[in-house]
Amino acid sequence: MTKEALYYKIKRIPPIHQEVAVDTKDYLQNLAKPPGSLGELEYIAQKISAITGKQRNHLDKRCVLVFSADNGVVKEGVASGPQSITAAQTRNMLDGMTGVSVIAKHFHSDLMVIDVGIHDYVEHKDLIRRSIRRGTSNIAKQEAMSLNEVIQAVEIGIEMAEKAWKRGYQVIGIGEMGIGNTTTSSAVLAALLGLSIEEVRDVVGKGAGLTKSAYQKKIAVIETALLLNRPQKDDPIDCLQKVGGFDLAAMTGAYLGAALFQLPVAIDGFISIVAALCAARLNPLVKDYLFASHCSHERGYVMAQNELGLNAVLHLDMRLGEGSGCPIMFEIMETACMVVRDMATFEKAQINTDYLNPIRNQDAF
Amino acid sequence: MTKEALYYKIKRIPPIHQEVAVDTKDYLQNLAKPPGSLGELEYIAQKISAITGKQRNHLDKRCVLVFSADNGVVKEGVASGPQSITAAQTRNMLDGMTGVSVIAKHFHSDLMVIDVGIHDYVEHKDLIRRSIRRGTSNIAKQEAMSLNEVIQAVEIGIEMAEKAWKRGYQVIGIGEMGIGNTTTSSAVLAALLGLSIEEVRDVVGKGAGLTKSAYQKKIAVIETALLLNRPQKDDPIDCLQKVGGFDLAAMTGAYLGAALFQLPVAIDGFISIVAALCAARLNPLVKDYLFASHCSHERGYVMAQNELGLNAVLHLDMRLGEGSGCPIMFEIMETACMVVRDMATFEKAQINTDYLNPIRNQDAF
Repeated sequence: MTKEALYYKIKRIPPIHQEVAVDTKDYLQNLAKPPGSLGELEYIAQKISAITGKQRNHLDKRCVLVFSADNGVVKEGVASGPQSITAAQTRNMLDGMTGVSVIAKHFHSDLMVIDVGIHDYVEHKDLIRRSIRRGTSNIAKQEAMSLNEVIQAVEIGIEMAEKAWKRGYQVIGIGEMGIGNTTTSSAVLAALLGLSIEEVRDVVGKGAGLTKSAYQKKIAVIETALLLNRPQKDDPIDCLQKVGGFDLAAMTGAYLGAALFQLPVAIDGFISIVAALCAARLNPLVKDYLFASHCSHERGYVMAQNELGLNAVLHLDMRLGEGSGCPIMFEIMETACMVVRDMATFEKAQINTDYLNPIRNQDAF
Repeated sequence: MTKEALYYKIKRIPPIHQEVAVDTKDYLQNLAKPPGSLGELEYIAQKISAITGKQRNHLDKRCVLVFSADNGVVKEGVASGPQSITAAQTRNMLDGMTGVSVIAKHFHSDLMVIDVGIHDYVEHKDLIRRSIRRGTSNIAKQEAMSLNEVIQAVEIGIEMAEKAWKRGYQVIGIGEMGIGNTTTSSAVLAALLGLSIEEVRDVVGKGAGLTKSAYQKKIAVIETALLLNRPQKDDPIDCLQKVGGFDLAAMTGAYLGAALFQLPVAIDGFISIVAALCAARLNPLVKDYLFASHCSHERGYVMAQNELGLNAVLHLDMRLGEGSGCPIMFEIMETACMVVRDMATFEKAQINTDYLNPIRNQDAF
């Protein structure tokens, strides 16, 4: 597919059913509780109803899509762990042993794990094999990937969201596994935000855990990668191609796919939100399908969140990745749906609501 | 019981098993994830293990204790709704129709609903009847209750926590239903913090929803109540007696009881945390049993949270009360336990951890 053809596909994302959100908002006002008192749960319920076009929703069928890939930049010593962890944890994830596996199981969420470019071979029957190459090139020396490769990665992401939709999932989450991918995420975010070289350190965190000297090196490597490859601020595909990773590009595609197939989609942490920002830059309608789960430890997270107009409801200080925040968020989203489905109206609760009129007339307060 | 006898009872709260928390922390360091990367979940798991004295825990049996009572101060026009709502919603709660009922059901939590002083009669077989009086006196005119009444209320709270423990609950949450109780909670908090009259407005919020003029009146009423009744800053029982409510006093007792019977206990919102603060002032060991759920909309919440050294993990902008945040928190707490129970160690995950040594040696970074 050409870049132009991809853009046409991305343009096909349908607007959400705002009129249903308005109906849901009205309905929530008639439930036996102080108006608006369920806060974000009410907002989440409205947003979900706008996506599905239905006031009453169930989010029982859930799946976290985890994209695994390696990053050439680890040669620079920017990551806390060796490259072999990407393959090992991808296998362990499918065996139910990692953080996201345990949390997903508890919250009745399935996992789809996709190899989009792991360096080592992973032996597992449940791994979805879409490897583009055995890891990207080292962004401190050259572009991460070719134009063809980045488009292929985005398409794989769209394909996986479609697969999830075809399997009947009602909500998906987007996670990753890839040593070195907070480095590429910081680089892509710095590029998207058009940060000066002096500002780059504002979006660089310590990833999964780094020594002080490795952290300084990480900042220097990202600065080098940006100066060398010159990603274009207004072209997310260019940013992903030059300083991103196969995981980030495929995740961007998965967000686009979720929107194309009208699925609510939960963001995990920093890497996940950078991909969400890429998708939203490609088509702002994507924002209407996004739900922020937990506020990441990484410094750039809040910047991305602010541009997306989102609000993470979980403050768990997590920095594991893997999509581990998504299953918890699925449950919060389901709780929001359940409030709409199961709470009594004032009428059913036999409460006269005349007293609410002065409050309702003072929404601004 | 005399106040002195109550103090003796409160002194019997056992210290938690810190040594087990240390073991759990060590164990968490050996799970296949970057050290500390599950953030608050790891901290919650450690705290629970210190309470139970066991490294591996289940929090399957859960209960929210909801204390219902009316407040004489509603005569001053400080509440958004009529007094009759307390009784109506207490009944609806038991019929599964209110916010907390729906959320509790979803998260497999039971409810214990206790009448400690509702004005109107509530017809319901499942209501636990411990009414002290049909509502407190109006704190803008006199003390809320007598010394005997406040001690009785605290004892009822302890009794209910004991009942929950005897029924085999592994975790409890503390909620309330009582029109006017954000007014009494703000008054108690202002008293505990020793705020000057000018500072009182810093802990007064709009409760369930108020017009601007009602909000100004609420501040004035609390100022009057404090000036008139002069609650003693260093005597939580005195604060509860003079400007509190039956619900607040019983909730204080429930926190004390949770600690006495070594149960982890989830705080709901503003009213719930003010009672927790009263309990912790009576015996600081209570803090080790507390878990903050969601960060309340009310302005005083964060002040109480800071003194308790807690960190609300849910940012849902809720202001419903009823204990509605507790069942969501139970699930987060269970997730934390599950990580300890089910995640693989590095050894099982076949990951060599030598690479972690430089990071582990730089904990401070």
